[in-house]
Amino acid sequence: MIYADNAATTKMSRAAIEAMKECMEEDYGNPSSLHSVGQRAQEKLSEAREKIASLLGCLPAEIIFTSGGSEADNQALRSAAALGAKKGKKHLVSTAFEHHAVLHTLKKLESEGYEVTLVPVGEDGLVSPAEVERAIRPDTCLVSVMYANNEIGTIQPIPEIAALCKRKGVLFHTDAVQAAGHIPVSLENVDMLSLSAHKFHGPKGIGLLYARRGLRPDPLIEGGAPARGKRAGTENLPAIMGMAAALEESVLHMKENAEKMSAVRDRVIAGLSRIPHGILNGDAKKRLPGCVSFCFEGIEGESLLLMLDDYGICASSGSACTSGSLDPSHVLLAIGRPHEIAHGSLRLTFSEETTLEDADEVVTKVKEVVEKLRGMSPVWRELQEGKRQYFLR
Amino acid sequence: MIYADNAATTKMSRAAIEAMKECMEEDYGNPSSLHSVGQRAQEKLSEAREKIASLLGCLPAEIIFTSGGSEADNQALRSAAALGAKKGKKHLVSTAFEHHAVLHTLKKLESEGYEVTLVPVGEDGLVSPAEVERAIRPDTCLVSVMYANNEIGTIQPIPEIAALCKRKGVLFHTDAVQAAGHIPVSLENVDMLSLSAHKFHGPKGIGLLYARRGLRPDPLIEGGAPARGKRAGTENLPAIMGMAAALEESVLHMKENAEKMSAVRDRVIAGLSRIPHGILNGDAKKRLPGCVSFCFEGIEGESLLLMLDDYGICASSGSACTSGSLDPSHVLLAIGRPHEIAHGSLRLTFSEETTLEDADEVVTKVKEVVEKLRGMSPVWRELQEGKRQYFLR
Repeated sequence: MIYADNAATTKMSRAAIEAMKECMEEDYGNPSSLHSVGQRAQEKLSEAREKIASLLGCLPAEIIFTSGGSEADNQALRSAAALGAKKGKKHLVSTAFEHHAVLHTLKKLESEGYEVTLVPVGEDGLVSPAEVERAIRPDTCLVSVMYANNEIGTIQPIPEIAALCKRKGVLFHTDAVQAAGHIPVSLENVDMLSLSAHKFHGPKGIGLLYARRGLRPDPLIEGGAPARGKRAGTENLPAIMGMAAALEESVLHMKENAEKMSAVRDRVIAGLSRIPHGILNGDAKKRLPGCVSFCFEGIEGESLLLMLDDYGICASSGSACTSGSLDPSHVLLAIGRPHEIAHGSLRLTFSEETTLEDADEVVTKVKEVVEKLRGMSPVWRELQEGKRQYFLR
Repeated sequence: MIYADNAATTKMSRAAIEAMKECMEEDYGNPSSLHSVGQRAQEKLSEAREKIASLLGCLPAEIIFTSGGSEADNQALRSAAALGAKKGKKHLVSTAFEHHAVLHTLKKLESEGYEVTLVPVGEDGLVSPAEVERAIRPDTCLVSVMYANNEIGTIQPIPEIAALCKRKGVLFHTDAVQAAGHIPVSLENVDMLSLSAHKFHGPKGIGLLYARRGLRPDPLIEGGAPARGKRAGTENLPAIMGMAAALEESVLHMKENAEKMSAVRDRVIAGLSRIPHGILNGDAKKRLPGCVSFCFEGIEGESLLLMLDDYGICASSGSACTSGSLDPSHVLLAIGRPHEIAHGSLRLTFSEETTLEDADEVVTKVKEVVEKLRGMSPVWRELQEGKRQYFLR
């Protein structure tokens, strides 16, 4: 079996599992308790916080542990909106292909009286800093642009966008859930950043919101004293230890892993590009090392991935968060794929464990499955018989 | 070392650790993924959900997994408030000694235009159903009363309060974080209930909100498809498996554990009652099996627990969530303890692993430490010299 759905979730690393297990067995104290068992947990928490901060290049106090990327995104957007409202600034800028944790929060904020501008995305899957700049108004309180897209893997020009937001005096947030642990993530001029551990071989149920010193994000979850009023609830120390271990490994081996994964990715892209009437989604180079996204004309993505599963390949048609939905991916629509094409999408996301042999096997099997499905597809027959026009060459 | 701070957090059970470990190693898929790895995770998730539902006596679909008790409380209150607002009902009833996850959310709701009535609590640490009934108004959208108090351990008359809310047509929520897994928890007439796994030997970072069928609580965390729009974010399957294992054990052994813990509790209460100028907080019988709470005149709770820690006993002065704060416990003030007495509080919360020998040791050491601290206390000297009046006999 080849697991090629690492953007949905990754297998935990041995180091992360061991760190969690040790903590669950030894350091079960509540870090807020004053006795020695609690204080020992507090020390471990501080150590993990310091380790993560040094890996990210920020201060320990700038980290708010959350239950994952979605919570971090929600908190970032709601905090910035609340802060903006106090100054009469109720306009937010984001992009058309953000994760739903951002898009749905923006929808909610709209229903509460905020205005939202979604910057369009190029066919190459890249957000243009100039478009972002054009969208900023005097009443803009936040710009939120993801670091790398979760469906097509394109890496956005975050340093440029962050710098222009700084220049314009507007807060800038980035959802770095797909980027963190995989590519270098710069915090320069970034005010808030979300990440999630289970995307880089860490545990599920833990993530963080980086919030630049001086910013005091409102808690999304209200309650007791932990995290100095920025996030209530007993700190999830075992998961935090697991996240620290996974992030450390990911950052230490980032360069070699990226090289390995890029080689696999480029081999798969080259192989799949030979399938007629198919197209790579997003820029070929400005993309995450492990991410390949294609659309194939005349087939349904869901059938494609179910048949691939029978062939021993775990893939996805878009993001796991929207599977089960019949709507085509908002990301593919945002980069201009028509509905008919967006439905025939395939996302393959590799890990550092994927080999070049795996890459060849994936290509062979995808080709076979695409042919098989086209052979059964009435749409494909109409295309071949000239009763329909091809969208893709 | 005797760990007597199980209300802050418990040591994970072997079964819970093993369940988590196995899941982290074997079932790392994202339950929202359509391929076999994801579907296997989805099956495990369904099994865990069904197990938990059957242990709680509810339907699987009535369970929303959250990152813990605080998140569940926040979601319950915010959902009921939003629902109420739609009907022009913007009044909430709760009690003066709720957990901060409830009280702080209520404060926030007040700042958003809601009205809140906090029902007073008797000196016995019990909320009177009649008082709750009196507080309900035609525009009341929610009553929220905790199942058992987290500092003094008193068990509230939830079935009566739930029944009267039902009769009055008002939604009823109960924070059962301290009760679940320790005493039988009835869902009869309860619309929403919060619980947290790490209070019954399960993992940290996981809990749930029970929401009666037909209620559709708004998500607190917006985002992708998981949990049918009731809570975004990848499901934390390993922690859910750990919670299911821990809850199963707790429920299976509830009776025998409660008997063991009550014996320890009553022995400690009897022993500590012999310390002059001290008082048990809360009703002696209507309390959690493992919970003892005392106030001692003339000393500071913090010094007491730090010295007890040196003597090998991990205790707490109030809830872990408020430690580090200089304010006296709002719970002790709510049951009428004056500031001077509330400061000298001690909470001991035992587990089924605590023995009667441990109980005797705790009594001996608390006595010794109280005497020692009183010997150093200027307030105690003034009391003894008649320059101050005793509050407690």
